[in-house]
Amino acid sequence: MTNLTGFNFIAGTSSAQGSTTFASFNPRTRTAGDVQFHNATAEEIDRAVTAAAEAFEITRDYSTAKRADFLDAVATEIEALGDELLQTADWETALGLPRLTGERGRTTGQLRAFANLLREGSYVGAIIDTALPDRQPAPRPDIRRMLLPIGVVGVFSASNFPFAFAVCGGDTASAWAAGCPVVVKGHPGHPATSELFAGAVHKAIEKCGFPTGWFSLIQGNTVEVGQTLVRHPKLDAVGFTGSLRAGRAIYDTAAKRERPIPVYAEMGSINPVVILPGAVSARAESLAEGLVGSVTLGAGQFCTNPGLILMLKSAETEAFIGLVRDKMAAREPGVLLNEQIGSGLEKAVSATLGRGRVEKLTGGEVASGEGCRYTNTVLQTTSAAFIADSALQTEHFGPVTLFVMCDSTADLEAAVQALHGNLTATIHAENNELETAGKIFNLLREKVGRLLWNGFPTGVEVVYSMQHGGPYPATTAPATTSVGMTAIQRFLRPVAFQNMPDALMPPALQNANPLGIWRIVDGETTK
Amino acid sequence: MTNLTGFNFIAGTSSAQGSTTFASFNPRTRTAGDVQFHNATAEEIDRAVTAAAEAFEITRDYSTAKRADFLDAVATEIEALGDELLQTADWETALGLPRLTGERGRTTGQLRAFANLLREGSYVGAIIDTALPDRQPAPRPDIRRMLLPIGVVGVFSASNFPFAFAVCGGDTASAWAAGCPVVVKGHPGHPATSELFAGAVHKAIEKCGFPTGWFSLIQGNTVEVGQTLVRHPKLDAVGFTGSLRAGRAIYDTAAKRERPIPVYAEMGSINPVVILPGAVSARAESLAEGLVGSVTLGAGQFCTNPGLILMLKSAETEAFIGLVRDKMAAREPGVLLNEQIGSGLEKAVSATLGRGRVEKLTGGEVASGEGCRYTNTVLQTTSAAFIADSALQTEHFGPVTLFVMCDSTADLEAAVQALHGNLTATIHAENNELETAGKIFNLLREKVGRLLWNGFPTGVEVVYSMQHGGPYPATTAPATTSVGMTAIQRFLRPVAFQNMPDALMPPALQNANPLGIWRIVDGETTK
Repeated sequence: MTNLTGFNFIAGTSSAQGSTTFASFNPRTRTAGDVQFHNATAEEIDRAVTAAAEAFEITRDYSTAKRADFLDAVATEIEALGDELLQTADWETALGLPRLTGERGRTTGQLRAFANLLREGSYVGAIIDTALPDRQPAPRPDIRRMLLPIGVVGVFSASNFPFAFAVCGGDTASAWAAGCPVVVKGHPGHPATSELFAGAVHKAIEKCGFPTGWFSLIQGNTVEVGQTLVRHPKLDAVGFTGSLRAGRAIYDTAAKRERPIPVYAEMGSINPVVILPGAVSARAESLAEGLVGSVTLGAGQFCTNPGLILMLKSAETEAFIGLVRDKMAAREPGVLLNEQIGSGLEKAVSATLGRGRVEKLTGGEVASGEGCRYTNTVLQTTSAAFIADSALQTEHFGPVTLFVMCDSTADLEAAVQALHGNLTATIHAENNELETAGKIFNLLREKVGRLLWNGFPTGVEVVYSMQHGGPYPATTAPATTSVGMTAIQRFLRPVAFQNMPDALMPPALQNANPLGIWRIVDGETTK
Repeated sequence: MTNLTGFNFIAGTSSAQGSTTFASFNPRTRTAGDVQFHNATAEEIDRAVTAAAEAFEITRDYSTAKRADFLDAVATEIEALGDELLQTADWETALGLPRLTGERGRTTGQLRAFANLLREGSYVGAIIDTALPDRQPAPRPDIRRMLLPIGVVGVFSASNFPFAFAVCGGDTASAWAAGCPVVVKGHPGHPATSELFAGAVHKAIEKCGFPTGWFSLIQGNTVEVGQTLVRHPKLDAVGFTGSLRAGRAIYDTAAKRERPIPVYAEMGSINPVVILPGAVSARAESLAEGLVGSVTLGAGQFCTNPGLILMLKSAETEAFIGLVRDKMAAREPGVLLNEQIGSGLEKAVSATLGRGRVEKLTGGEVASGEGCRYTNTVLQTTSAAFIADSALQTEHFGPVTLFVMCDSTADLEAAVQALHGNLTATIHAENNELETAGKIFNLLREKVGRLLWNGFPTGVEVVYSMQHGGPYPATTAPATTSVGMTAIQRFLRPVAFQNMPDALMPPALQNANPLGIWRIVDGETTK
């Protein structure tokens, strides 16, 4: 890890005013890195947000084409970081080079996908109602509405996606695409990776002639750094991916501001999977294999990890659970991202087992040997216990899943109705079970942002139609997504122009439709 | 006012468990009505929200056509209330029959406009990305996304629009259109009017075969009634129109819930008007007349009342202000909605005058004679004072406006940059002032939801393109509107369906596009 400074990156300049520092940590070897990273001070955070607000004065008038070029430039600069980026992130997260290579592709891919969205241009949702000068009793004015950037955005990196939900991840890409300057709070689990990204962004900013305040990276391993950012009077919105505890704390702080701001916090979930009897009969082996693969993928450290499996009690179900248990036990436990996640997981599983009426089928302990690891864990309880105790809906962030045994379809439906908000829900069923499946889907629909049929929830496609969100506690903003093209909507707000001279209006609303975008004009969708 | 009961209307039944009551109040005669209205109890509120949640289990599967028919039926039943509705509201609000007749048309008009939006159907924002079975390294699944209703909505009626922002007003209409059952907290300023509306809704529910829990009306003149509603665990979102104090209290309560819910509060604003010198030279008389008409319309009790006028200092400006002052003084002060608004206005103007550096040009006192009235008031200050003291941005809810004198265009721009969030901003200018106007518009754009050119902000058109919202403190949700067709988006949330059998998917997402709506399919906008 050559050339790392451990400095914050504030509007184009390196800065290390803070006296407290922290280091990278290799979870495979439990060793610390050489470089000391400086916690950002209140003064540095103020400098970052103020510079962002000043940059916004300039960049909010940039064309969508100019922003698109910038997003492409960032993708190019990320690729130019080459193997050093992959190796640095692997050292800090133990996610492995194949996964990180894929995640880098996803990260540059979504930057370019947003660039294409901007070039197409219809995302501004232009709506035009032309004047009715002869209307009685008074003429109707000409009114035109479009979406414009909300302002300065603070982004909190996630631990589990050091590329795709981090410095240049989905939140940052969608905020930039919307036209918003970004101040990123780097995750303390991969500060060196964050610093490399900051260098890439800096090059793209210089290449594209953007003001330096368009981007800053603040580092920190304290709650205070993030809270100071959220409290800054010039911040206009927050994107966050992480734990319920941290996300809720940020939401609460933002709500208490003199001027409250929106917090788009994606806080994970337990992603219920309902398996109907026909699916077990038809394909127990492949189903068990797929499920175990999904639960243990990335050592279970995915927001969409299937942490809850609801089934109808039967001999076949028992055999299936045995199969899952054996496959889980047979897999080598993966290395966790860091020690905090390891100790958090240990605590969460102990707490669940401590509720009573939860049986441990395998795992449930720290794995022996080198590295931060936790045994692949299978737990089991009854629908009655699950319904009675909402603590059993706590996320275990790791390779853990909980089977819930239901005596009847009615019990199963009751368990589904007791669910809190989740990112996803899945049903496995055969075609002769469509009626039961449909009814359960209909109940699950109210609980989640994405419903899957005969699939596994991990592996979130970055497509226009993706919905990665859901009712609380999955997120603090169920009407939004943090993945996919509509993620841009979080950082836009509508503005209407009434009787405005054509020359003063943004191109998206001008009579000639110079951008050639889709618009709703007097109720008709038209180009 | 015959046949009034003073009861709450809970899911199809009348209920009066509460021991505390209040009466209507006629602001013209300062007399109380005969009927005692019962404050809703916690048990009644629980019954209303629980019934709404139960109704949602059924109604969320209703077709958009069925909901459209219901909205039309409500409009018809409101019209069937005939003169009694107008007279009752006039007695309670003193708004006058012509205004109330117009407002009734707007209210039934927006119900029918939402019905048409549902029949057209594209509001669900359907996005489809079809499968790529041959993609490497893994196939891409079929993913389809649409907007679905968020759940049970609580609506707080406004005092100043007893029809259009009340029991069957824009919040309720858009929530129903979205597919959400509604519990309305009636405004204590017009409880009899609210009760008449509840009867009309009840008839529409019976006619259309909706479950009774689809609508409830709770009455109350205490903070507790509203707070109990917002705290109810089964409530999913809140629509509110009213004061900053009340709106913020509701927002704070919702944010502190175990499961926070969105609060769409429209809390009014001071609606800055910038008048450039050319406009004064060209049309002082008509400009002054229009401005005074806008400030005094409805006794100034509009969220879009132009309460702040920014001008460049000159002899012509001084003459113009004199003209406005004289016209304001010459107009008969209108009757205010109720005594609370009168005393609030008195307090607000006194507080503004007490800041120092604010001069009273006319008015500034309770009007003599019968009825709750306040003199038409013109205040004046300097840009320096305005920029230095943010308390001068407090809304005066009544016929009051404040001139801000700027020594230069730079001062004017600084004053604009100091503005808090507002619903609207207006510029009056001539065509040879486009450059200056454009620069100021560009600054104002960041502060408001709607920009007007050579117009007056009162008179909010109910059209697709309307944006009635803005940055805090104008609202708690700057990305949304409470007027116009896109108001429906507040009560919707996206759900994605992955690899779902066609038969299990909502019609909006099925292959055949049976609803014939606009959809984005593999990136192409298509029917």
